[in-house]
Amino acid sequence: MQPQAVLETVVYCPDLAAGEAFYRDVVGLVAFTRMPPRHIFFRCGEGVLLMFNPDVTSTERVAVAGGLIPRHGGRGQGHVAFRVAASSIQGWRERLKALGVAIESEVRWPQGGESIYVRDPAGNSVEFATAALWGLAEW
Amino acid sequence: MQPQAVLETVVYCPDLAAGEAFYRDVVGLVAFTRMPPRHIFFRCGEGVLLMFNPDVTSTERVAVAGGLIPRHGGRGQGHVAFRVAASSIQGWRERLKALGVAIESEVRWPQGGESIYVRDPAGNSVEFATAALWGLAEW
Repeated sequence: MQPQAVLETVVYCPDLAAGEAFYRDVVGLVAFTRMPPRHIFFRCGEGVLLMFNPDVTSTERVAVAGGLIPRHGGRGQGHVAFRVAASSIQGWRERLKALGVAIESEVRWPQGGESIYVRDPAGNSVEFATAALWGLAEW
Repeated sequence: MQPQAVLETVVYCPDLAAGEAFYRDVVGLVAFTRMPPRHIFFRCGEGVLLMFNPDVTSTERVAVAGGLIPRHGGRGQGHVAFRVAASSIQGWRERLKALGVAIESEVRWPQGGESIYVRDPAGNSVEFATAALWGLAEW
């Protein structure tokens, strides 16, 4: 037995408004659920990116239809990578520069693929990477 | 411009060996890169699950082909959800029980879908969820 995919990927961002602006305007994601001060959820491909305020999710008890949602809440600088088309990587670079988002680093991987790294407002390391990094074919 | 998908999802697990045993034996993932004490990487669907030891990744400086991999490293209990087929959810429940993994909670969502929650060795909240939770069709 194996899972089919990762369904939910999490970033913790205590300032949800700043986080939403970043993931909307910089990453280009669309929020579909907004429950401040607890969370804002975004769709991304066939999965979801969940942005939580860890001050809330680490302390609350939330019951849904009789079931409890377990507590969680990370601190420090997390990491997430978004898959971008190889044909778009220069466009992403230009978009980040146009938006005034500092590019912290860029890596051309020996095995193929490219990564561009920035930081979100909570300090999480956010990467835009091409599929070749993990030996995956372009879609 | 939008990313195509989440490519990398991260869990932090200071005890990599315990973490690998969990994600292999309980979740069913296959490690394809193992670099203790820094990281172990797993494939999952079209993405990768990266398990890092935050004691290493938050302090090191790693250069690849002239580019620096930015530091990151979360503390506390994170969260990740794996997509499982609706037809397999009872099988997952039985597998967890057979392996002696405590089920912390189960939720049947009002909008559809089911979730089973357990903890990994680092205390991260690990969820097995069906696609209907996010309004997605079964594959």
